[in-house]
Amino acid sequence: MLIEPKILKGFRDFLPGKALKRKNIITILEKTFTSFGFQTIDTPVLEYKEVLLGKGGGDTDKQVYSFKDNGKRDVAMRFDLTVPFARFMALHINELNLPFKRYHIDKVWRGENTQKGRYREFIQCDFDIVGLDNASADFEILQIIHNSFKALEIDNITIKIAHRGIFNNFLANINASDKAVEIMRTVDKISKIGRDKVFDILKDLTDLDSADKILEYIEPGKDFSDTLKKIITMSGGKSESSERLWEVYEFLQKTGIENLFQLDPSITRGLDYYTGIVYETFLNDLPGLGSVCSGGRYNNLASVYTKRELPGVGSSIGLDRLMAGLEELGLLENNNTNNGVIVLNMDKTLLPHYHKIASVIRDSGLACEVYLDSKKMGNQFSFADKKGISYAILCGTEEHSSNTVTLKNLATRENHDKIPLDEAIVLIKKG
Amino acid sequence: MLIEPKILKGFRDFLPGKALKRKNIITILEKTFTSFGFQTIDTPVLEYKEVLLGKGGGDTDKQVYSFKDNGKRDVAMRFDLTVPFARFMALHINELNLPFKRYHIDKVWRGENTQKGRYREFIQCDFDIVGLDNASADFEILQIIHNSFKALEIDNITIKIAHRGIFNNFLANINASDKAVEIMRTVDKISKIGRDKVFDILKDLTDLDSADKILEYIEPGKDFSDTLKKIITMSGGKSESSERLWEVYEFLQKTGIENLFQLDPSITRGLDYYTGIVYETFLNDLPGLGSVCSGGRYNNLASVYTKRELPGVGSSIGLDRLMAGLEELGLLENNNTNNGVIVLNMDKTLLPHYHKIASVIRDSGLACEVYLDSKKMGNQFSFADKKGISYAILCGTEEHSSNTVTLKNLATRENHDKIPLDEAIVLIKKG
Repeated sequence: MLIEPKILKGFRDFLPGKALKRKNIITILEKTFTSFGFQTIDTPVLEYKEVLLGKGGGDTDKQVYSFKDNGKRDVAMRFDLTVPFARFMALHINELNLPFKRYHIDKVWRGENTQKGRYREFIQCDFDIVGLDNASADFEILQIIHNSFKALEIDNITIKIAHRGIFNNFLANINASDKAVEIMRTVDKISKIGRDKVFDILKDLTDLDSADKILEYIEPGKDFSDTLKKIITMSGGKSESSERLWEVYEFLQKTGIENLFQLDPSITRGLDYYTGIVYETFLNDLPGLGSVCSGGRYNNLASVYTKRELPGVGSSIGLDRLMAGLEELGLLENNNTNNGVIVLNMDKTLLPHYHKIASVIRDSGLACEVYLDSKKMGNQFSFADKKGISYAILCGTEEHSSNTVTLKNLATRENHDKIPLDEAIVLIKKG
Repeated sequence: MLIEPKILKGFRDFLPGKALKRKNIITILEKTFTSFGFQTIDTPVLEYKEVLLGKGGGDTDKQVYSFKDNGKRDVAMRFDLTVPFARFMALHINELNLPFKRYHIDKVWRGENTQKGRYREFIQCDFDIVGLDNASADFEILQIIHNSFKALEIDNITIKIAHRGIFNNFLANINASDKAVEIMRTVDKISKIGRDKVFDILKDLTDLDSADKILEYIEPGKDFSDTLKKIITMSGGKSESSERLWEVYEFLQKTGIENLFQLDPSITRGLDYYTGIVYETFLNDLPGLGSVCSGGRYNNLASVYTKRELPGVGSSIGLDRLMAGLEELGLLENNNTNNGVIVLNMDKTLLPHYHKIASVIRDSGLACEVYLDSKKMGNQFSFADKKGISYAILCGTEEHSSNTVTLKNLATRENHDKIPLDEAIVLIKKG
């Protein structure tokens, strides 16, 4: 009896077209990260459960794939790349060159309820600078976000920035520090639940006047410096935090990339983890998609594992959400050309010759395959067409005896009859 | 209380140096595979246990990481890339362009006993052609093995070939067909347990005379065609299998790559799975390492999941074993140069200018980072040195006011004082 070849809910196969698109995006990101001197690392998919979840475990716990291995160890599959990175830094701190700039692009797993754009297996693209607490590092992460989307040719984005330290000063100023975590989590939901609901929750958490002030605080002004001035005033004047944010803004201006950045004090990132600058990135045409690249500054990455203080700043691109967005915007179109070459199989007895031709073409730096089956020419052209191949080489007995080939441009159907192979390669490279 | 940042036995972290080396090898393999028109796919790490292990489960079972997920489903982590590929083909056959050439490079997990070069998490590099049963396809996989090692600049290898069909004919000829599986598994162990022990086992399985003949059969002759003639005679004359092998050999000769290939009838690959040509690849300087690239022809990839017959041929490179071998041979030396550039931090107030310089250098196509900390110059040079950076840009107040930079070659310690940035970039690119 046959077994049904089904896959688990929330998990996906990637067929060649989509797998290639994802790979191309990853390659572009890797190039961007390495151009800034970031280095890749790798950590295991499976770790001790305690290492990933701590002694307690909590809400995340339920989403984590954890089990006992054959040696009765409690193990878990990583649910993000940050916790393993913290463990990695604690373990290898003395082998690393600080400040350490790493990127890590790989799969993580969460048994969440599946919904549009949410999967149980998905890829995160993390990049962090660890061992520094200064404006240069904060700025560099923002610059990498800017350059990454530029390299991906996604121009129509807004990177919204805020600063947790200034928000905390503001909350102290209105005597609401004791509710800081709940307030930030509430504000974080504004794009999902709306201004009115946020106001109601804030009013219950604090009082009418404070709720009013919080909503005033999180409202962006007409530009970056205008907004910054407002939140400085509302938070009781200049502080280390506001000076830092100002410094970062100066970096953005002086490198001429400030246009894409907006100071939006409603960005809080919810997580207690962050202590300084925080940011989220939105596709302007799809604000409802949510952030496709978020992060911020934290003052102690690995405090669970080591007494050594490791301040850092970083960000993560949600590759699957980004791809879902690009697909919706028609920016992930099936431009299925691989610019490759196929040597058609016109005469079985010439197959060794075809393989030789393909070798020569590959040695010139082009991708080239031999049509390996022995079907009719119509089938061969249709195979090439489906695969998005650009050029066909035809070599029948006439071409073979005159040591030539016929080159066919599969898009234009234009032929170059009986030319030397060298010449065909030159024509293909000209495009 | 701190949690110990330990990792599981058989699992590894990859620090930047080694992670980059592995990545570079993978990039070279991907380039080779795609140059032959192979396309990448992706499948989930977790699958239904039944899909991966069949209804029964067996010996592999014990090595597999399997558990109940939060929805009480029996799931397992993939232990190879072949079984998920078979499931993938059965599920997507109608969406794919046959013959289908896919490669897949990713991690798999087995809870085996750990030993030198054996890990519980390791990477496989699989490449297969599915939907064809002919010499062209058999040959192409061999050609890709040849080209892969050439691209990796590993020349001193031997690819040992045999053919299961001819072996079966031979066993029929000596009336030992009923013991075929046990005999092949025994012969497969010859490099591990030696000729004498193999003889003893074979003698018990069959008889003295048959054991003698089997050992004679598996002994390679003086060259490919000599060996082929011998095994044709011993297997009762020409057959479809021997004709196929001869055809493949002709392809190897006509494309001029026959040198690396040896016909070695002792290669059987043990697994019942294979039906035609089989091969293993050895580093000549480390024969004891075992095969670093093995595979063969199978006549039905996905018979567990579909009635559709899917003959194929493929191979898999054992990346971790290969890297262990290269390390032992000193071929994985720490040539830790990234040819990158670092802009040193001589004056904190000039940091925005340094970031601007780095942007210009990156825009020219070079990797460039700003030294983000504010330590002494000695520390900055030592940071650059440890990271293998090739060039430093120094820009103090003098350079800044004259709109120049000083370029330092970190290997030769040679300086170009106060030159325009454009000129520095040209010099760096010249190397």
